[in-house]
Amino acid sequence: MATRILGERVGIKPTISEGTAFAPANIALCKYWGKRDEELNLPVTSSLSISLGHLGTTTTVQPISASADEIALNGKPVAPNATFAKALSAYLDLFRPAPDFFFRVETTNSIPTAAGMASSASGFAALVLALNNLFEWELPVKHLSILARLGSGSASRSVMTGFVEWLAGAEEDGMDSYAEQISGTWPDLQLGVLKLSEKEKEISSRKAMRCTRMTSALYESWPIKVEHDMALIKEAIGAQDFELLGRTAESNALAMHATGLAAWPPVLFWLPESVATMQKIWKLRTDGLPLYFTMDAGPNVKLLFRADNLSAIQAAFPEVEVVKPFE
Amino acid sequence: MATRILGERVGIKPTISEGTAFAPANIALCKYWGKRDEELNLPVTSSLSISLGHLGTTTTVQPISASADEIALNGKPVAPNATFAKALSAYLDLFRPAPDFFFRVETTNSIPTAAGMASSASGFAALVLALNNLFEWELPVKHLSILARLGSGSASRSVMTGFVEWLAGAEEDGMDSYAEQISGTWPDLQLGVLKLSEKEKEISSRKAMRCTRMTSALYESWPIKVEHDMALIKEAIGAQDFELLGRTAESNALAMHATGLAAWPPVLFWLPESVATMQKIWKLRTDGLPLYFTMDAGPNVKLLFRADNLSAIQAAFPEVEVVKPFE
Repeated sequence: MATRILGERVGIKPTISEGTAFAPANIALCKYWGKRDEELNLPVTSSLSISLGHLGTTTTVQPISASADEIALNGKPVAPNATFAKALSAYLDLFRPAPDFFFRVETTNSIPTAAGMASSASGFAALVLALNNLFEWELPVKHLSILARLGSGSASRSVMTGFVEWLAGAEEDGMDSYAEQISGTWPDLQLGVLKLSEKEKEISSRKAMRCTRMTSALYESWPIKVEHDMALIKEAIGAQDFELLGRTAESNALAMHATGLAAWPPVLFWLPESVATMQKIWKLRTDGLPLYFTMDAGPNVKLLFRADNLSAIQAAFPEVEVVKPFE
Repeated sequence: MATRILGERVGIKPTISEGTAFAPANIALCKYWGKRDEELNLPVTSSLSISLGHLGTTTTVQPISASADEIALNGKPVAPNATFAKALSAYLDLFRPAPDFFFRVETTNSIPTAAGMASSASGFAALVLALNNLFEWELPVKHLSILARLGSGSASRSVMTGFVEWLAGAEEDGMDSYAEQISGTWPDLQLGVLKLSEKEKEISSRKAMRCTRMTSALYESWPIKVEHDMALIKEAIGAQDFELLGRTAESNALAMHATGLAAWPPVLFWLPESVATMQKIWKLRTDGLPLYFTMDAGPNVKLLFRADNLSAIQAAFPEVEVVKPFE
């Protein structure tokens, strides 16, 4: 698939010594949940995210004279047989000008490690952008998005900033499945991350998605829900309607988790604390605080609120980690 | 609607002094979730339950010379303006031979109050059966089921014992929406009730059902799930296939709860303890114990297991209240 985009360039070695790039993490307001193609990471539906400003991944790639890739994460070397290194090297296979061409990859996450946000999206996006610099491909962002998608679906949304829509596409080869920026910023929109568990999740997103798509009777309604929610979120962004944005994002996340409940075996990412936190949020909202949440494929809760409610949010959740996407 | 069934008999006063009857409580293995007619309690889908043997309600009705109904619950008089009394009197309005005809109703639940099981199903069923005795209507069970349904949907399933299917029906007047017994017993099938909260639930089943049916995108898939699950549960009963019964009942209950998550405002009956209990059950099952659960519109969990695993269940859940439906 990379050759489809790179054409003749795929066999050409770089003439400069390194490429560096940053890519932001992103949080989906309308979730990516279910693949129509497992290998190409082609989604069943479109999705829509908000990029997290300066929180993300910076990656440098260099060609090296060695018999294997050398990978470092946050300044520390990663063992070649670690899952992280194997995933990166398998992905780099798509781009080697020759089978004996290896890379040194230095990747640094500025996402606070306690934040419980996926780094694979910004990680693969930063890697693709760094490769684009190293090889001087000068690819259009659409093609960078497709290449990032091959590493991790949500990485397709991390090659750009702000609000981003990943178009599901319909073609078998995925050439129409890439992200596009949605115009508009929202300076007073803030996020708050509540990290409820340090535990590794028991089921990967990939497996959970597959199990849900294959076995959940409720999954059939998911694409309809997404179509509806995508339109509402775009409307909310256009009108800067915070309540509409919050309500739609929260409902979308809950519906995503709901589809898993009807899978077999049941897919439930929540901890008891997740329920307690949701109930606390609902209570605060009933009491008048405009506060909504979203959740990804894990137990942690991400708050959505406006800057003018920051102190109330911090009072209710002293442990909250605040993210300002547009600052 | 009652006159449709009772015909001319509706105006005839009883010639005997009292009628008494018992009706069992029931737990749905395939849930009743969503009404197509709010007034007649007509369901969107069929449902299937297991009656709880000797656990249920015994009710005696007597005509009295008074200016209002007199209602007693578990030996204690109920104030006429209490919700319970008002619901009963409104229901009795359907059956008064004259506007100034009043009843004394004594109702006693043998469902342990700690068990967290709905008494409205057995309550309305016992009341209808007692009225049938008092008025000597000698109605067929199908008609008794329809009359009970007018009091509470799930009461339609409590006018008989064992496995019971409530047929959704399609007619506007509900004359084809009644329960039928499914042949077969299952002596070693046991239930365990885990009461996780004494708290009144914040949203009634009736309201939650309505909100879910009206606003949840996932509700559209519910009737398809039910159709599938009904067939599987009947197959399981026929073949005495416990794993199939347990898996299907658990998945059905989770799917019911899931539809509410995608409603707005979100409908979630769970407590943090509900999630902890589910996770404990899933762990026990992974470790080899054939244990499944179901949940109704509340936070409590009802275990499904075979008699030969009783001691393992009691060891894992010392607080469990065991119910033997076929004993």
